Amino acid sequence: MNAKFLQKLIVPAQSKIVLLILDGLGGLPLEPGGKTELESACTPNFDALAEQSTLGLTVPAGPGITVGSGPGHLAIFGYDPIEYEIGRGALEALGVDFELGPDDVAARGNFCSVDQDGIITDRRAGRIPSEASCELIKLLSTIKVDGVEFFVLPVKEHRFAFVMRGEGLDDALSETDPLKVGASTLPVRALRRESEKTARVVNQFIEQAHCLLAKKHPANMITLRGFAKLPTLPTYRELYGLNAAAIAINGMYRGVARLVGMEVLNVGGDTVADEFAALEECWDDFDFFYLHVKKTDTFGEAGDFAGKVAAIEEVDALLPRLLALRPDVVIVGGDHSSPAVLKSHSWHPVPVLLYSKYVRADGIPEFGERACARGSLGILPAKHVIPIALANAGRITKYGA
Amino acid sequence: MNAKFLQKLIVPAQSKIVLLILDGLGGLPLEPGGKTELESACTPNFDALAEQSTLGLTVPAGPGITVGSGPGHLAIFGYDPIEYEIGRGALEALGVDFELGPDDVAARGNFCSVDQDGIITDRRAGRIPSEASCELIKLLSTIKVDGVEFFVLPVKEHRFAFVMRGEGLDDALSETDPLKVGASTLPVRALRRESEKTARVVNQFIEQAHCLLAKKHPANMITLRGFAKLPTLPTYRELYGLNAAAIAINGMYRGVARLVGMEVLNVGGDTVADEFAALEECWDDFDFFYLHVKKTDTFGEAGDFAGKVAAIEEVDALLPRLLALRPDVVIVGGDHSSPAVLKSHSWHPVPVLLYSKYVRADGIPEFGERACARGSLGILPAKHVIPIALANAGRITKYGA
Repeated sequence: MNAKFLQKLIVPAQSKIVLLILDGLGGLPLEPGGKTELESACTPNFDALAEQSTLGLTVPAGPGITVGSGPGHLAIFGYDPIEYEIGRGALEALGVDFELGPDDVAARGNFCSVDQDGIITDRRAGRIPSEASCELIKLLSTIKVDGVEFFVLPVKEHRFAFVMRGEGLDDALSETDPLKVGASTLPVRALRRESEKTARVVNQFIEQAHCLLAKKHPANMITLRGFAKLPTLPTYRELYGLNAAAIAINGMYRGVARLVGMEVLNVGGDTVADEFAALEECWDDFDFFYLHVKKTDTFGEAGDFAGKVAAIEEVDALLPRLLALRPDVVIVGGDHSSPAVLKSHSWHPVPVLLYSKYVRADGIPEFGERACARGSLGILPAKHVIPIALANAGRITKYGA
Repeated sequence: MNAKFLQKLIVPAQSKIVLLILDGLGGLPLEPGGKTELESACTPNFDALAEQSTLGLTVPAGPGITVGSGPGHLAIFGYDPIEYEIGRGALEALGVDFELGPDDVAARGNFCSVDQDGIITDRRAGRIPSEASCELIKLLSTIKVDGVEFFVLPVKEHRFAFVMRGEGLDDALSETDPLKVGASTLPVRALRRESEKTARVVNQFIEQAHCLLAKKHPANMITLRGFAKLPTLPTYRELYGLNAAAIAINGMYRGVARLVGMEVLNVGGDTVADEFAALEECWDDFDFFYLHVKKTDTFGEAGDFAGKVAAIEEVDALLPRLLALRPDVVIVGGDHSSPAVLKSHSWHPVPVLLYSKYVRADGIPEFGERACARGSLGILPAKHVIPIALANAGRITKYGA
């Protein structure tokens, strides 16, 4: 079933849908036979909601595939994450909270070391500390090339995000990193006619950067790769007629939400409670709400099992505030798994709960991986969740007579 | 998710994966409410492994589709069995242990009866006994047509496999069997320019065969159909960077394994224990091992429920030898179901168990059809098992950031 097919069946309704995403929600037990983070957490509110819900496990991109936050979010937003790929440069810029525009071209940047002949001696400039990198970035930010605005944004150590903004920029560009030491950095080449101007601009930027950094060894040169604009996605309004709001604190998630046409709200603080407060405040203004909780993933990636458990419990404690708003449909899920034992994202399917007055409730009074494995949503592609939510929200009409 | 997408995410690792296939594993109870063959078998080792594994049911080609061993194996090897079709002629040759080369053209052959005008009076030559057929095959094996080598291999009764080996052969050929009595056998026609030479060669072979068989009524003529080369499949090395070994005794399975680039090992005997010994011997030399057990299917097709139960128990007793090698990932499954009550292959989904240190274990202490139906792998296309195994083996990197 593709988006176009669904789009034709969409009808307006007064219902409200909440998509509550606990980043990296899925987990693993610390030891064989043990409980996962979600199973270990004391979650009376999730459990009570689970009993009236239909449960399942979502697969973000495909069997065995571990996704980053970009594709993981596109999938749970209802998009095919393989069809709509967000380029690395664009992700890098979103990841540092940069408000990437639809015509901006972004890239991943590295400081590197070159000798007097321009030959790379260290692709990471000795992993210079972030503070040193920030000083150099200030230098690079002074560069001007006619008609094009540059943004150079610190990421970590030798890494930065690079963004160009201007008329007629195109991202079909070759990379400048030869991917090995002992070779020169490469000039950017246009990979199609439309990108010739952009290639020229980037090469001028690099030339000026080279001059500015000449005496800054080990960080005396830069490489740029993964040039990418944001992909153009059909928006929630176009696809579903939804007026959607995003409540998220971190840049990556705000960026991906903007990409699908959600209005990204300003949250009056950086706690999960602040996000729930933002939800309450804007409740009358939208009919779809994406609320993102980052902490669960942060603890998972740090290998902090107890921290992840506590983060889940914090959200559980806030759930009554969400339910008090009487949403018609509530989805609680994740963009991917991040088991503390793996200290990373993983390929494991992600627990999901879908509540509405009209679900065929499984009557399973628990929200956890194994409970969800018994749920009647089954194991489903993450992108299938939104259509089911829309149906429960009375927003899909009958196909055929 | 297609193979190209997965291929780009493959990374090297030191891990080892074992794919243990019990041919025709899936079954049915003898009577309503009873247990299947696998459920009836006493399998303490499979059951213990199941408890630490994730369970599911595999669908080889699609809902309701009963597959032969060729497509069933391609699917559990991770290939789409509908996209990659192994032609009937090629399967017939593989099925009699013939080492079909990549440029050989194979066909299914029948002896038939014709009258003095060449009109078919019996398409199966009265189902002549295999012994009589073998004598005639010796005659046919004397035929020479310039530059092309022929192999005529007995199958059963009036059936034989026919293989041509030579330069520039092509399999786009029409069939010679009119599929009814009262009609003449048909000359082979080239279905494209590249197969013109091959058509000429086949017609010369048939003409000589007709002369040699003239006085051998009822088997006084042959028909050939299902002309096919082996399909070209991307190999395990190309797709996954895997150095794969196949341990199988019967020709068909050795042939299909060779098709995907596995190294087909010589087993020092014809028992299942000999196959496990081969696994132990080559353990250090490969990182993927396919081990095929034929008996389960043989008993299933023979309608021998108790025999199939005993065959499963025999494999269960050998499992500790496999586990003693400390594989990182173990898959136990089948290529299709072969319930003894049906005396044939069937469409029923096939039990599968996937063990690794990193699976989210279902904690179900039983390996059987209904236990697997409760497992968190769910009911999945057979081709999805290998990607999940690769993920568990640390051989797939993250998609997107």
